[in-house]
Amino acid sequence: MSSSARPTGLIAKSGIELLTFGTPNGHKASIILEELKEAYGKDYVFQSINIMENIQKEAWFTKHSPNGRIPAIVDHDRNEFSVFEGAAILTYLTRHYDPEHKFCFADADDISRAEQWVAWQHGGLGPMQGQANHFYHRIPYPTQRYVGESERLYGVLDTQLKDRDYLVGPGRGKYSIADIASFSWVNVSYFAGLDLAQFPNVHRWWQAILERPAVKKGLEVPSKSPIVNSAIPERLETDKEFKEKDDELKKKGEEAKKQFNYKFSSP
Amino acid sequence: MSSSARPTGLIAKSGIELLTFGTPNGHKASIILEELKEAYGKDYVFQSINIMENIQKEAWFTKHSPNGRIPAIVDHDRNEFSVFEGAAILTYLTRHYDPEHKFCFADADDISRAEQWVAWQHGGLGPMQGQANHFYHRIPYPTQRYVGESERLYGVLDTQLKDRDYLVGPGRGKYSIADIASFSWVNVSYFAGLDLAQFPNVHRWWQAILERPAVKKGLEVPSKSPIVNSAIPERLETDKEFKEKDDELKKKGEEAKKQFNYKFSSP
Repeated sequence: MSSSARPTGLIAKSGIELLTFGTPNGHKASIILEELKEAYGKDYVFQSINIMENIQKEAWFTKHSPNGRIPAIVDHDRNEFSVFEGAAILTYLTRHYDPEHKFCFADADDISRAEQWVAWQHGGLGPMQGQANHFYHRIPYPTQRYVGESERLYGVLDTQLKDRDYLVGPGRGKYSIADIASFSWVNVSYFAGLDLAQFPNVHRWWQAILERPAVKKGLEVPSKSPIVNSAIPERLETDKEFKEKDDELKKKGEEAKKQFNYKFSSP
Repeated sequence: MSSSARPTGLIAKSGIELLTFGTPNGHKASIILEELKEAYGKDYVFQSINIMENIQKEAWFTKHSPNGRIPAIVDHDRNEFSVFEGAAILTYLTRHYDPEHKFCFADADDISRAEQWVAWQHGGLGPMQGQANHFYHRIPYPTQRYVGESERLYGVLDTQLKDRDYLVGPGRGKYSIADIASFSWVNVSYFAGLDLAQFPNVHRWWQAILERPAVKKGLEVPSKSPIVNSAIPERLETDKEFKEKDDELKKKGEEAKKQFNYKFSSP
């Protein structure tokens, strides 16, 4: 459920209301909500907050999300309790609505391990790849700084996934909020000039998660995103201008790496 | 307790061992450890990991901290369980060693609020002010991008602290890991070209926290830092070269703001 008019306030009376947009941080929230829906039948309502129109800066929004950023959730069943910051949304939703620990953990050490990897995404992969997105399209020196740092972080992830299917949990691991956090960013790697072929374990992990029905649904909230990896081949095929710009970016990216003497090093 | 030789492996047999350096992220870990020491008598051992010498990239270190970054802790009393990422260190230490919830919360909503503000620091204030540190000393466009974004984030903090002493908790709030997380970065604001006089509530909150004995001690682990705000007046007074460079930076910062048409806007 969603409203198509420009949002001006909350629209639900019960359950979780998600205020979001089709970005990696938004997808973290919509994926966990879709997983909870599939696992427990927990429904939610969303509104599309168009960040190009600065809806997230309006007073009704910052009341629920003081940082003026998506995603945010409001829990109408718990006194309109609001949660901002993707990492805190993942833990809030699993604390209250995942009683069987399907997407989180009961064991104290695994809880901490999940916290560590969620924090790693939230403070490292997210902000650094976000800067890579920005500068990859602009200036060589910061491109080098951020694409290089993002590649280092992908290397860390690749090492962690070497003998595992998922980041945390016994044996080969259990799919959890730790995976959802990083998946949402790996899912837009192409846009930041990163090549998954360089990270075979990340690539395998990303493909497996992409197959989950709830993930597919979550990625379409509030609408299909043109920047996710799976949208790229068709765009390259059908959009000549996009293809030309992409070729140009790749060339510039390579030049920046040479200019600043880049060597891949990770971890 | 600390070792003065170049670290090559763990040195403790029991309790918490902190692997750190005198950066804002390092201070988060040392402050909470000093608070726990003062509150419960819990002792810890630290080693200084000189990040200029890339000790944090060595295999013995990345075994405990796979991202190759400080701080990390190893809990010798819990099977050498290791924790990386500052946000996860704060929650791990309070989960296991703050039974009276002196620096964290028992109420589910306050737990979430603390998570939200810790995440806000970990994914926003930290990475953005970190980039401001870097570019403030280099190139105008990213300076504008990051100093401006950091000022916006300080504005969010200032609003949250308007009628509060601390970020989370009933009434005017309770000092907690949420404050420790952001304090450690606000404590080096000057270095990134940020002026606390612009944020009176942040300034008051910062000063109050700075008075805590455990905070003073934590800030000297592993050694006194030359980049904390309180070290700046003396450096400006006694170090002519530092003063000249600082004046030059201030001038360039102002010019960059003009050049890129900067207007403060927050939240």
